[in-house]
Amino acid sequence: MSEKTALKLHPGDNVAIVLVNVEAGAPLSPFDIAAQTQIPRGHKAAVCAIREGEDVVKYGQIIGRASTDIAPGAHVHVHNVSMAEFDRDYAYGQHAKPLEPFTAADRATFQGYRRPDGKVGTRNYVGIVTSVNCSATAARLIAREAEKRGLVDKYPNVDGVVPIIHGAGCCIGTDDEAFYKLQRTVWGFATHPNFATVLMLGLGCEANQIPLMLEVYGNPPKEQFRYYTLQAEGGTRKTVEKGLEWLEQALAYANEATRETIPASELTVALQCGGSDGYSGITANPALGHAVDLLVRNGGTAALAETPEIYGAEHLLTGRAQTRDVGEKLVDLIHWWEEYAAKNGSTMNNNPTPGNKAGGLTTILEKSLGAVAKAGTTNLAGVYKYGEKITAKGLVFVDSPGYDPVSITGEVASGCNMVCFTTGRGSCYGNKPAPSIKIASNTPMFDRMNEDMDINCGTIIDGVETIEEAGRRIFDEMLAVASGKRTLSEQLDVGDAEFAPWQTYAQM
Amino acid sequence: MSEKTALKLHPGDNVAIVLVNVEAGAPLSPFDIAAQTQIPRGHKAAVCAIREGEDVVKYGQIIGRASTDIAPGAHVHVHNVSMAEFDRDYAYGQHAKPLEPFTAADRATFQGYRRPDGKVGTRNYVGIVTSVNCSATAARLIAREAEKRGLVDKYPNVDGVVPIIHGAGCCIGTDDEAFYKLQRTVWGFATHPNFATVLMLGLGCEANQIPLMLEVYGNPPKEQFRYYTLQAEGGTRKTVEKGLEWLEQALAYANEATRETIPASELTVALQCGGSDGYSGITANPALGHAVDLLVRNGGTAALAETPEIYGAEHLLTGRAQTRDVGEKLVDLIHWWEEYAAKNGSTMNNNPTPGNKAGGLTTILEKSLGAVAKAGTTNLAGVYKYGEKITAKGLVFVDSPGYDPVSITGEVASGCNMVCFTTGRGSCYGNKPAPSIKIASNTPMFDRMNEDMDINCGTIIDGVETIEEAGRRIFDEMLAVASGKRTLSEQLDVGDAEFAPWQTYAQM
Ligand SMILES: [Ca+2]
Ligand SMILES: [Ca+2]
Ligand SMILES: [Ca+2]
Ligand SMILES: [Ca+2]
Ligand SMILES: [Ca+2]
Repeated sequence: MSEKTALKLHPGDNVAIVLVNVEAGAPLSPFDIAAQTQIPRGHKAAVCAIREGEDVVKYGQIIGRASTDIAPGAHVHVHNVSMAEFDRDYAYGQHAKPLEPFTAADRATFQGYRRPDGKVGTRNYVGIVTSVNCSATAARLIAREAEKRGLVDKYPNVDGVVPIIHGAGCCIGTDDEAFYKLQRTVWGFATHPNFATVLMLGLGCEANQIPLMLEVYGNPPKEQFRYYTLQAEGGTRKTVEKGLEWLEQALAYANEATRETIPASELTVALQCGGSDGYSGITANPALGHAVDLLVRNGGTAALAETPEIYGAEHLLTGRAQTRDVGEKLVDLIHWWEEYAAKNGSTMNNNPTPGNKAGGLTTILEKSLGAVAKAGTTNLAGVYKYGEKITAKGLVFVDSPGYDPVSITGEVASGCNMVCFTTGRGSCYGNKPAPSIKIASNTPMFDRMNEDMDINCGTIIDGVETIEEAGRRIFDEMLAVASGKRTLSEQLDVGDAEFAPWQTYAQM
Repeated sequence: MSEKTALKLHPGDNVAIVLVNVEAGAPLSPFDIAAQTQIPRGHKAAVCAIREGEDVVKYGQIIGRASTDIAPGAHVHVHNVSMAEFDRDYAYGQHAKPLEPFTAADRATFQGYRRPDGKVGTRNYVGIVTSVNCSATAARLIAREAEKRGLVDKYPNVDGVVPIIHGAGCCIGTDDEAFYKLQRTVWGFATHPNFATVLMLGLGCEANQIPLMLEVYGNPPKEQFRYYTLQAEGGTRKTVEKGLEWLEQALAYANEATRETIPASELTVALQCGGSDGYSGITANPALGHAVDLLVRNGGTAALAETPEIYGAEHLLTGRAQTRDVGEKLVDLIHWWEEYAAKNGSTMNNNPTPGNKAGGLTTILEKSLGAVAKAGTTNLAGVYKYGEKITAKGLVFVDSPGYDPVSITGEVASGCNMVCFTTGRGSCYGNKPAPSIKIASNTPMFDRMNEDMDINCGTIIDGVETIEEAGRRIFDEMLAVASGKRTLSEQLDVGDAEFAPWQTYAQM
């Protein structure tokens, strides 16, 4: 059998990705056709005849329409594909499909922490969350002193003490969405199920008042939440001392938590891509998408985010929206982003650039499909603001920038108890308290950064496994990591420095 | 002698601050007058007759105009004071006064570090500066491993290893002022004279490219600057290992630096207030202002910042501008801020609020004078963008928000090698690499937070010393700290978590 030179991403596709530069006449193995012309690596070839006006289908999705008859083996690109007209129609829910859930007997489980309020954690950390930068050092000093004294080692069920610190929290208005965003984010971490218990530290006079959060969200039980302010306690050292006293009790309390068998429906996985390359959309992303389909069929939840990455192709998601209301919420976000970008002198337009086109991306739909591929194929069940608590099961969307740490901070604040992160160029990301599985799009990068990359999906291009096989592997890894298997970023102790709340206010 | 119940802030003032609630007829000691009516604590009393139309003078500055004849001992407030009309006139440089520099023989010196490029440091740190959040953990892991191995202890002349990390650096446009702001800030730290040498760490694919900074600012000598990216080095562990190899050399290099006698003209002091109270404007701020006058008369530099805090009273500074150009730069900033606030749904209007008025603040001029008091009385010699290198000597202005960590990050990036920070409610701020002297406005707070407050100016209200005496004490402390005396925040090891670049871009 000759070497594989082309790859069909979905059974319903009428184009395949060409994996190497091919000359006219070269076989497009494993298909029984030859290239009609020279076709560059990463570009598309027709795997059957496509008549003028017919849909061009990749990822099982329409990416455009044939503007002329296309022969099998022909190069498919801007010269013979035009944008389909349906792309301006949000078609709310018209492409939604019934879910095929696994039967109760087939449903996956993992070993997780069931919290007193019913929420489920995949890790058992103790958190020190700050309302403002002015209390950041006190939080870090408590965690550092705990490390020096070896406190955590005495409590084998506790994963660690995590200071959640940031540069924000004051000199901002307190009555608009920009403020609520920060408030939700800080509070989302303070009540995250991967924390057994949390101490919140403030300065005292900051705009992001702790008592105001308690007023808005309610005051959790004392075993799970306490707060101090530096001004009330008399400064740094006294607060650190008091924090260390709290910590002894907190660690003892957290240590009582034990893992138990939990249905996979309690997993809420943050989806992310960063440092994408030409392979992301055809290997790591669709493989993760398959894992997400498995998760959703198990009753679980996956959160797509990174609103700028779906811009211009939002109808791909509105068409899959469970209800019209869900679809409209997504469109409202899109409009908000247009205004946000414009008033800051930026633009949302991510139409295929000359570089994208040279790489083989023909339409904005194709580009966005690569990003959206990591969300799988199920219906869109909910749309949430940045840091807003996710309440739906299934595939949901959380508004956020594309920038990895800021985006994941919002997803985790929204309740994600695990992260799956695809990358082509390589990432050293990690999160606390949410374990993060990093998935490589190509083998050379996986090999080069093998101490940071948990999973290789370059195997799909290498011909070692199919998208479905890689997806199954990712899903199994989700369950293993949720049950306590430590990711590479956890082994490296990454995650204390990656809390980065999205700041959309004027900093006064 | 009866207890002091009133305080004149400047010899030229025709009003005094009443220090306790007084009844009609009560003596306003040490003045030979009695209160005409009840006057609340913190409000003003006339210390001489002020005729209708005459200026009302506090801090040696006009705060308004008498709207009726005012008798000695009368309560001076909104009922008998109106806003002076000159406040709409920028009067560029019209109130500039010739400086009275100290003679060469009287000039102060300190023990500082003269760097190869001629710049002067007050500390001798080794820095690990990050271009993007994606390399934050690698920077922290290098610093942590150095601590674990006791590396710094081997080099007695080195103050420590400082990771400069943040949440920004990617998914932003790279051709506008918002980006240049970030670039200047990161580069300002990377080349700060309080660092003997710096390693910069990036991920590799971030928008804030390290090679781009080298292109814009030039590549410093290898002994003072190196950079690695995680993608090129093959991930976290390999980069940390390489960073630790670099660190051994860097510490040895840094350890060769020694303190030498340096004129005070090489000091550049960042001015800041945070958590202000009713006393800030009459104790800590004017005392710091006196110290700044001494510094400037020694040929040194002090940077006022916090643009929103001077809004509405910018003519107080334009009138003292050394040149028309300097004054116009300040007014340009004010216009930028109006737009920035408006487009983000905020407002710049900080006219005295009902709370301010109840506290005794009569006009916006009086309010702003309290904040500006910390800048002393000399001419405004330069106006700089956030993080822009300060090149003038004397009193300068650096554009920034009022929020302490974000403001000081800009001041230090602009080249300040020390910080003086006044506070009424209490602050636990510290900075690396710039030592920060914290100055309390009142004795009860100083006593309560005595492990964080370096200097008490509550003494001025307590009748223990004059503004000038307290100012002299602050100036002496500047020289001592510049020479190596460790501030309380340094003893507590505060400053690793306070780097907070101002983000004015749309985060995409
Ligand atoms: Ca443990
Ligand atoms: Ca991303
Ligand atoms: Ca030392
Ligand atoms: Ca203020
Ligand atoms: Ca401030």
